[in-house]
Amino acid sequence: MANQPAAAAKTAITPRRDEDFPEWYQQVIRAAELAEPSDVRGCMVIRPWGYGIWENMQRQLDAMFKATGHRNAYFPLFIPLSYMQKEAEHVEGFAKECAVVTHHRLDIGPDGKMRPAPGAELTEPLVVRPTSETIIGATYAKWVQSYRDLPILINQWCNVVRWEMRPRIFLRTTEFLWQEGHTVHESEAEAREETKRMLDVYEEFVRDYVAVPVFSGEKSESERFPGAVQTLCVEAMVQDRKAIQAGTSHFLGQNFSRASGIQFQTRDGKQEFGWTTSWGMSTRMIGTLIMAHADDDGLILPPRIAPTHIVILPITPKEETRAAVLEASDKLAAELRAAQYNGAPIEVEVDRRDLGGGVKNWEWIKKGVPLRVELGPRDLESGNVAVSRRDQPIKAKEFLARHEFVRRAPEILDSIQNNLLQRAKAFRDVNTRELNSKEEFYDFFTPKNSAKPEIHGGFALAHWSGARDIEEQVKDDLKVTIRCIPLDDPAAPAEPGTCVFSGAPSLRRVIWAKSY
Amino acid sequence: MANQPAAAAKTAITPRRDEDFPEWYQQVIRAAELAEPSDVRGCMVIRPWGYGIWENMQRQLDAMFKATGHRNAYFPLFIPLSYMQKEAEHVEGFAKECAVVTHHRLDIGPDGKMRPAPGAELTEPLVVRPTSETIIGATYAKWVQSYRDLPILINQWCNVVRWEMRPRIFLRTTEFLWQEGHTVHESEAEAREETKRMLDVYEEFVRDYVAVPVFSGEKSESERFPGAVQTLCVEAMVQDRKAIQAGTSHFLGQNFSRASGIQFQTRDGKQEFGWTTSWGMSTRMIGTLIMAHADDDGLILPPRIAPTHIVILPITPKEETRAAVLEASDKLAAELRAAQYNGAPIEVEVDRRDLGGGVKNWEWIKKGVPLRVELGPRDLESGNVAVSRRDQPIKAKEFLARHEFVRRAPEILDSIQNNLLQRAKAFRDVNTRELNSKEEFYDFFTPKNSAKPEIHGGFALAHWSGARDIEEQVKDDLKVTIRCIPLDDPAAPAEPGTCVFSGAPSLRRVIWAKSY
Repeated sequence: MANQPAAAAKTAITPRRDEDFPEWYQQVIRAAELAEPSDVRGCMVIRPWGYGIWENMQRQLDAMFKATGHRNAYFPLFIPLSYMQKEAEHVEGFAKECAVVTHHRLDIGPDGKMRPAPGAELTEPLVVRPTSETIIGATYAKWVQSYRDLPILINQWCNVVRWEMRPRIFLRTTEFLWQEGHTVHESEAEAREETKRMLDVYEEFVRDYVAVPVFSGEKSESERFPGAVQTLCVEAMVQDRKAIQAGTSHFLGQNFSRASGIQFQTRDGKQEFGWTTSWGMSTRMIGTLIMAHADDDGLILPPRIAPTHIVILPITPKEETRAAVLEASDKLAAELRAAQYNGAPIEVEVDRRDLGGGVKNWEWIKKGVPLRVELGPRDLESGNVAVSRRDQPIKAKEFLARHEFVRRAPEILDSIQNNLLQRAKAFRDVNTRELNSKEEFYDFFTPKNSAKPEIHGGFALAHWSGARDIEEQVKDDLKVTIRCIPLDDPAAPAEPGTCVFSGAPSLRRVIWAKSY
Repeated sequence: MANQPAAAAKTAITPRRDEDFPEWYQQVIRAAELAEPSDVRGCMVIRPWGYGIWENMQRQLDAMFKATGHRNAYFPLFIPLSYMQKEAEHVEGFAKECAVVTHHRLDIGPDGKMRPAPGAELTEPLVVRPTSETIIGATYAKWVQSYRDLPILINQWCNVVRWEMRPRIFLRTTEFLWQEGHTVHESEAEAREETKRMLDVYEEFVRDYVAVPVFSGEKSESERFPGAVQTLCVEAMVQDRKAIQAGTSHFLGQNFSRASGIQFQTRDGKQEFGWTTSWGMSTRMIGTLIMAHADDDGLILPPRIAPTHIVILPITPKEETRAAVLEASDKLAAELRAAQYNGAPIEVEVDRRDLGGGVKNWEWIKKGVPLRVELGPRDLESGNVAVSRRDQPIKAKEFLARHEFVRRAPEILDSIQNNLLQRAKAFRDVNTRELNSKEEFYDFFTPKNSAKPEIHGGFALAHWSGARDIEEQVKDDLKVTIRCIPLDDPAAPAEPGTCVFSGAPSLRRVIWAKSY
């Protein structure tokens, strides 16, 4: 903030992105009333505007899961401690920072205060689920006897808990909301196909609804989900040029089915362990959305996941025209709601609150509502409305004949949606480079300007030998990791080359970045 | 079961309702694949068919909450122990049987097994929310400064935990899913109005969607929510003639706002505590639904909350007609899906599984799908389909011209919905009596037939003085409690009388029953 030019235009959010990105992020969340920290360390309160975004994400993803044959179910919040030990790598990599339930009753202690009742200790402690592979596996083991019981294609929407020492709202919270898909298949090929299918669902969702382009591919061994054979992921770039993992899909092989005893009789009468997958996306996606699209005046919401598409701001300077303006606003809202956008009625709010027009306008700017419409006494006479798009400069207004606006609203929303995606794509593309030497690589990721230490190089496409010690060295030196290894694509075969670090042969360029 | 007549018709569910109601209930759940116990004591796994019912309940209730001005939000799973102490009655009545988190990390002990890490004890234990008044109150206290911030109208969909020593699936489980509404208002009148509004929402939902008629009213003091000034409830009768509370709406006065510090500046510049309400409905409603509608052949689902409305069972006796039958089934499904029922496309499943027709038919009977349609080679020739309604005898079939069935399907579903409600209403009415003496009352609730100890009198409408000791005596003697005290209804004013137990004056009859 010390570096802020004195002449900078005043912005609704202080500090600006280029001054202090992490603090700007917190302030955007606060200004948009998305969420806030609670008194329980690391746990957030998701406020209605933030939760409305999550509901839209859920609705859309859920429809995509159902269209690919999945159904929802619900499994217990608690996992017996002994289950956590079943899959060895899973324990090692994962299961340590957990909330542990040890008592099932409270009583009043000698000091008159409540305490865990000394006589109510559990014989086996319970872990609040950090993810549900083990508890769901134990259930599937009962359901699966024969190949006829397969595939099992189930998803769960729920809360999970992973103790966080350095929480950041939406990005790293002790409790968060997510979905976790868990499937069992008859063959390795089918399970691998499922893993890829759900990766594609995530890619489509993030691109076509959250308006964020992603790179998709496979994690290197060191970044793999503990216990997985293969972890696929989609990786987005946000405005500080860091990567954020936006969703993962794991091929678990027979590791978890062996640990849980998911065994079935095959078509030729043998006993085999099931082939399982799991895949998840969480409220972290809201953090991705904010960091990808928001600007120095606050949030900018892609229309397809905005809780409200259009806010109507009645301008009522004089008491005698007030009733007519409010009536016209309600009428306009009703006409807009009769139109469809993205398969459902347009969501419209008329802001009738008794507050100054400027105050209300800025609140909606900060909340990122896609379209703001002002309607005052003069507009009633002219038959026009003043329309502002959140993806355009704050002061820009287009005057449209009222009926024309109603007719064109879905098309304008689509145009905002597309514009946000194109903008994010252009930003990512300009900050993604093919790098061909170690020096170039280290230069790219070493901040040139020490006043802006959090603005990074971006995404680097560089050849890598596959050696784990190189990954570790790069991580130690630069805090840069392999975000993903692109999958084979027959339409655009990867070009082999030589590792920029070791000179060893490399099959393809992989994607490197600093990350959340 | 020892009393089962040898000549009784074979039923899909064993035992029958009149043999062993609690065991019948468990068997219906198992046969319909609704849910099952998990390895975590008291926690259930809700299977896809059961969760599909919950999703429909959620969708419908959520729409009703939004139509009455509420929005959803999300608050932390964990509540600091000290919060539980804030509201004195709440602590006393409620907060004892809780899951208590005491550690935030696991490690490997000297025996090589995982354990709560000794160094990772929380300074203040956390309680897994049994209900969220206290944690939400603490948040609202930050949000509310002025009357301009009111009302706050928020609902939360989540899981809650109340340790159960004698769990019963859907009815009493340690973890369950629910919604909890929490509102703050400027005045007592507004908060009381909200409390009643949400009671009406529950009454409408249970009647018009779950097809169960309810009595609504107020709880007596002894059955009130701990900390509430007034608890309103809807009470349903199920087929063993017991009552089950189907939803509650609490007027909390200023008790919780005082405890949490929800204070605001009034219109005339004073400081006042907010007037709060809370209201909830849970997965227990699925238990109510089962016990209200299921029969000795399994579940019967009201179409408005059935995950699938119509199942098409292709009859493929010969290989040469198989393809044609399957094609015709898919075509019929597509035609039906193009029609609307209850504001959405009809949900149709074609059961293509390679199993015997009888096996498949019985599975769907036990799952309670409203309509089953058989389609075989002869039907292709005749242009007819054989339609079976789950609310009619299992063997009953109606042959309808295919296009007529498609045209009439929504109307048939409506007819099933109405029939189930009328049936439940007739059952309740015939088992609800006005009782005018203590002797009559005790007779009504004393099982005449010791072979069927769980079949009870039903609902008794009897005058009561309002004295708490009478309630306690009746509860001790008969396990019968006041389910609700009907609210004043200007259209049908209550007739005063005299208490059947004490002869003291009574303002109105109240509703008594054994209950879940």
